[in-house]
Amino acid sequence: MEFMKDGDNYAIRIDKDENVFEKLTEFALKEGLNSGHISGIGALTNVELGFYHLDKKEYERKVFDKEYELLSLEGNLTHLDGKPFFHLHACLGDENFNAFGGHVFNADVAVTLELNFRMFDELIERKMNACIGLNHMEMRRV
Amino acid sequence: MEFMKDGDNYAIRIDKDENVFEKLTEFALKEGLNSGHISGIGALTNVELGFYHLDKKEYERKVFDKEYELLSLEGNLTHLDGKPFFHLHACLGDENFNAFGGHVFNADVAVTLELNFRMFDELIERKMNACIGLNHMEMRRV
Amino acid sequence: MEFMKDGDNYAIRIDKDENVFEKLTEFALKEGLNSGHISGIGALTNVELGFYHLDKKEYERKVFDKEYELLSLEGNLTHLDGKPFFHLHACLGDENFNAFGGHVFNADVAVTLELNFRMFDELIERKMNACIGLNHMEMRRV
Repeated sequence: MEFMKDGDNYAIRIDKDENVFEKLTEFALKEGLNSGHISGIGALTNVELGFYHLDKKEYERKVFDKEYELLSLEGNLTHLDGKPFFHLHACLGDENFNAFGGHVFNADVAVTLELNFRMFDELIERKMNACIGLNHMEMRRV
Repeated sequence: MEFMKDGDNYAIRIDKDENVFEKLTEFALKEGLNSGHISGIGALTNVELGFYHLDKKEYERKVFDKEYELLSLEGNLTHLDGKPFFHLHACLGDENFNAFGGHVFNADVAVTLELNFRMFDELIERKMNACIGLNHMEMRRV
Repeated sequence: MEFMKDGDNYAIRIDKDENVFEKLTEFALKEGLNSGHISGIGALTNVELGFYHLDKKEYERKVFDKEYELLSLEGNLTHLDGKPFFHLHACLGDENFNAFGGHVFNADVAVTLELNFRMFDELIERKMNACIGLNHMEMRRV
């Protein structure tokens, strides 16, 4: 991983065989980041995707273990239980150019991952919301 | 809906059962926004998508009424006929992780919707362009 | 093509029948841009997509010559061999709302293309990385 700050934005490159969440967490801790918006492209492998069943309040999970073009990674950084938490959704393309995707639980970089991170000064925390069974973003200023 | 301003960016959360366009319009009016870029993730339902047939200058429309992961929402705020207008495209994922999408005519939030809005000071207006049969963005400064 | 600067962002409109890479390169040269993040929506045609086979270090390429909704365009501007280089991935939707996509080698605008460009002051250059067989982003400050 290498990253570069430019004003309130960062360009981030995560490298082949590195784990996306491990590296993003390392990045957030090193830079002392509160929250922000993240998006990017690249290629991923060992991608664990989730689909949320609202009626059961449960994620269905599936691991995709080939190499895929990352058509879009989109999400945000907030804090959960005092730690940086990246909420990411991915749209992936296979070798036939078909697209698929979901909530990202885990992923390794297959070739390279090129991200843009737009930092917020404010801390956004997640708290459990019983209605949806998930930790949602709390917007009240800390 | 809750939102928080941070410099020239907003973090926005729109909640379960809320209508995406109603809430975004409410947000734009409350904040007196001119134009900007919007993107985000979450889960949607009752999504009316469009595919534009350029030869007929007509949208084909279809409603998808299950719950879907929102792999990416991407678009912009401009003004049309003096009112805020959000132009949004969505890529959605179903329970089999298959991706689909199009121009978004309507959508409700299924679980939560987490957006980043980057405001522009300038007002960008849309005007009818006969060549494409659509209101396209006029870049001349107002 | 028309574009408008607003702080460190640009709103860009590229028009029907214009080539995406020709126009983006023209934009980058005219504005003397070093690097940045780009994303947007619209409709494309004559889209040449690539899928990278890491084992062969080769792209498989395929041209899609109908008109497609552009569900998301996501990528960045860097410099390669002293010239502006846009690295773009697209997720496209066909008339049945099915999504597909990959690395974008070439594309024309089918209806309109609406982009947001967030400039960086820093110059990010690409250099060949033998491990992945591609020019990856070098983050060291110039």
